[in-house]
Amino acid sequence: MNNVNETVVRYLAAWNERDARRRRELVAATWTPDGSYVDAARDGRGHDAIDAMIARAQASFPGYRLNLVSGIEAHSGRVRFSWAAGGTPEAPLYLGGTDFAEMDDDGRFKAVVGFTDAAPAH
Amino acid sequence: MNNVNETVVRYLAAWNERDARRRRELVAATWTPDGSYVDAARDGRGHDAIDAMIARAQASFPGYRLNLVSGIEAHSGRVRFSWAAGGTPEAPLYLGGTDFAEMDDDGRFKAVVGFTDAAPAH
Repeated sequence: MNNVNETVVRYLAAWNERDARRRRELVAATWTPDGSYVDAARDGRGHDAIDAMIARAQASFPGYRLNLVSGIEAHSGRVRFSWAAGGTPEAPLYLGGTDFAEMDDDGRFKAVVGFTDAAPAH
Repeated sequence: MNNVNETVVRYLAAWNERDARRRRELVAATWTPDGSYVDAARDGRGHDAIDAMIARAQASFPGYRLNLVSGIEAHSGRVRFSWAAGGTPEAPLYLGGTDFAEMDDDGRFKAVVGFTDAAPAH
């Protein structure tokens, strides 16, 4: 299991990157070509769809940045980590989640499933 | 997503069932025929292998019972829940974990991945 920590850092950077070209590069470096993401609110498969999905999430949550708030636990090609965002004057809602990913041998994500740990009050 | 709560209850019952025949029935009712389980310490695929894996875990942890200690969160055919065991005179170590499963349309588990939330001190 190579580069799992780097992939998690790159994954969060992709969610946070507002420059379209750099975001697309981070997505391609994070997911396998047919990689997927799904949570209760959104999903995408393949680099183009994931990139567009993240762009829509960024438009819905301007000013939010995801930060890692847990260790990175990995075994058997799987990884778990938690993130949080918001709770600031510019991004007042506190958002949090735990993501689970299945990785390929290079540490890229084949499938990510997100669960919500803290949700907006409305 | 049918019966997800029932499947989680049955899943924990399978880990707790010491009667070999009943345990095997619970395993078959919980997992699809080619279903799998993997955590950092053990893995199995198919009803026979999963049943044998659970029997070995029970032999390693006599007196331990898994109890659900979280809500059951499900979306998109995935479910997350946490369990704990031990912390009693007969089972002094406190063990805990969070399991993630992918389900089929009937709510049976196709793949379960377990992560440790609390581990033995030795």
